[in-house]
Amino acid sequence: MATIKVYGSTFSTAAMRVFAALYEKDIEFEFVPVDMRAGEHKKAPFISLNPFGQIPAFEDGDLKLFESRAITQYIAHEYFDKGTQLVIRDSKKMAILSVWTEVEGQKFDPAASKLTWELGIKPLLGKPTDSAVVEEYEAKLAAVLDVYEARLAQSKYLGGDSFTLADLHHLPTINYLMGTQSKKLFESRPHVSAWVADITARPAWNKVIAMRS
Amino acid sequence: MATIKVYGSTFSTAAMRVFAALYEKDIEFEFVPVDMRAGEHKKAPFISLNPFGQIPAFEDGDLKLFESRAITQYIAHEYFDKGTQLVIRDSKKMAILSVWTEVEGQKFDPAASKLTWELGIKPLLGKPTDSAVVEEYEAKLAAVLDVYEARLAQSKYLGGDSFTLADLHHLPTINYLMGTQSKKLFESRPHVSAWVADITARPAWNKVIAMRS
Repeated sequence: MATIKVYGSTFSTAAMRVFAALYEKDIEFEFVPVDMRAGEHKKAPFISLNPFGQIPAFEDGDLKLFESRAITQYIAHEYFDKGTQLVIRDSKKMAILSVWTEVEGQKFDPAASKLTWELGIKPLLGKPTDSAVVEEYEAKLAAVLDVYEARLAQSKYLGGDSFTLADLHHLPTINYLMGTQSKKLFESRPHVSAWVADITARPAWNKVIAMRS
Repeated sequence: MATIKVYGSTFSTAAMRVFAALYEKDIEFEFVPVDMRAGEHKKAPFISLNPFGQIPAFEDGDLKLFESRAITQYIAHEYFDKGTQLVIRDSKKMAILSVWTEVEGQKFDPAASKLTWELGIKPLLGKPTDSAVVEEYEAKLAAVLDVYEARLAQSKYLGGDSFTLADLHHLPTINYLMGTQSKKLFESRPHVSAWVADITARPAWNKVIAMRS
């Protein structure tokens, strides 16, 4: 039995972020599905793993964590020598990488998650999409992607010369958005488009997608 | 002349976060004011330091950074042995600390920043506060602070036994909110209230406030 457990859902962007990091590091783990339709994530015992009642939650032996980006940071540092190196041990290069992980969390994700909800999730739940919200957040995402286009013209990946957490954290929302009208925002920017094609083709990411079948 | 420069404003919550980290580490720096009313942050040369046109931007010799939480992480790691230790070198304890820095960035700040804008900044600019927005975001902040109350009943600080980045990142928005009606959300929770009193009394934080005079 694996010592690492991830409590979540294969459709949750936050859980997918953690699965992607584990597959990149080639680390065995146990996936414990949480029945969100039954509200399992809002009550005991799950709430003792994540007091915000959100998935995922993570265990590595005695260590219990939540917040997907904190979990991926732990995986990347604790298992530094296994699989893909997702962080960098040079302090200045790591600082640049951290700038772009913060950009994902603070700039990209608020827009991408809102659009994922309106265009990717609501239709699955039979709820109507709010077109005014879509317009507002597509404009926000476009402004972020203009900065990405300039960055990716200078650097193969967001965090530096190699694929790292700064890129990986984007995969779940990009995966949803490429199945919606918002894909035009990515496809119309050549360096962003090439970067999306590159990172979504990674074998580790395709193992995350395959978890759904 | 200091090798570290911070471009920003003493009224910017993001810039204050960086100043607080530098004072905690007892690191000399040069403060370069950016005239936001004149829109200096939206044009060259500032835009070359932060492509999002937001303050602060940071230089340490040749290294140029933006995103306040990436800057504080860099300061905490690069100058680990100076001043207050704001991160922990044990990987499991650091992982817990990272959970709470992510909680600040993903849960606390979206609500606290919105309330800071409505109740703290808009009145200074002569703009009307939107009471429906205040009600919505006070409810969100209250839910986050319920989790903090439980955490701080178990742990003196959010990240662990000592004051770290996980606490420090909260200081600028808390400082604004304690001057507004939203202070009731902090004062009505005894452990949160004691934590606010503790962290806002730190000498390094009071040096940040003194920069305004």
